[in-house]
Amino acid sequence: MPGYNKGANAERELIRLFWGKGFAIARTAGSGKNALPMPDLIMLGKGRSIVIEAKAWRSKYLTIRSEQMEELFKWRDVGGAEVFVAWKYPNKGWFFIQPQDFVKNTHYSISFQKAQEKAVPVDVLFGGQQVLSRV
Amino acid sequence: MPGYNKGANAERELIRLFWGKGFAIARTAGSGKNALPMPDLIMLGKGRSIVIEAKAWRSKYLTIRSEQMEELFKWRDVGGAEVFVAWKYPNKGWFFIQPQDFVKNTHYSISFQKAQEKAVPVDVLFGGQQVLSRV
Repeated sequence: MPGYNKGANAERELIRLFWGKGFAIARTAGSGKNALPMPDLIMLGKGRSIVIEAKAWRSKYLTIRSEQMEELFKWRDVGGAEVFVAWKYPNKGWFFIQPQDFVKNTHYSISFQKAQEKAVPVDVLFGGQQVLSRV
Repeated sequence: MPGYNKGANAERELIRLFWGKGFAIARTAGSGKNALPMPDLIMLGKGRSIVIEAKAWRSKYLTIRSEQMEELFKWRDVGGAEVFVAWKYPNKGWFFIQPQDFVKNTHYSISFQKAQEKAVPVDVLFGGQQVLSRV
């Protein structure tokens, strides 16, 4: 299943990246029949807790299903975690996008152009700087 | 593989329990070939981040391999997480034990008697009370 492997490889890439930058980070196991809310990655460090949905996708738009975003919001509301969608665009690298930068209709979507404008620079995520624009 | 299922079922039991008590909690996926540090469970909520190694085991002693405990310590040192070993003793329930209550020789071990004495009551873990005895 190439699509699956592409996603899993992208997640592993993030895991290596963030361990190297001073964060503890893990992939989650599928929630299976329980259907409990589950981000792709959970990351702790520098006084912050962050959940990440990781997508490797070459397209003008990235869409996150509402149910998936709601799961991330449960981690924000219950766990106090910051939420990021990490979009890996082939040959362009990773873009870390906050939920409020998506347009919500039936689902959540963002154009690659807007993602490039709104993405939180990786140095901000890695560094000790707080992301101040949480809404 | 009954041993595996027993452990996975015990983890799922903790997941249901803690979601019901106001924590966001997930099982981690195996680290595979990367051999990155990985607790069984990661839990966020009430301003705390906690990593848990879960064991379902009927015996007078529980032993945690040194390598495994070191992985949990990486999550403490890098991620700032509190570390607990959750020992499920059949028909006795769960005992949440802190690493410093284990005896370290080649590996980390604790008797069931000492585990019962030292275990952090689940109400303390669930409630807003800080665990003050971290060393």
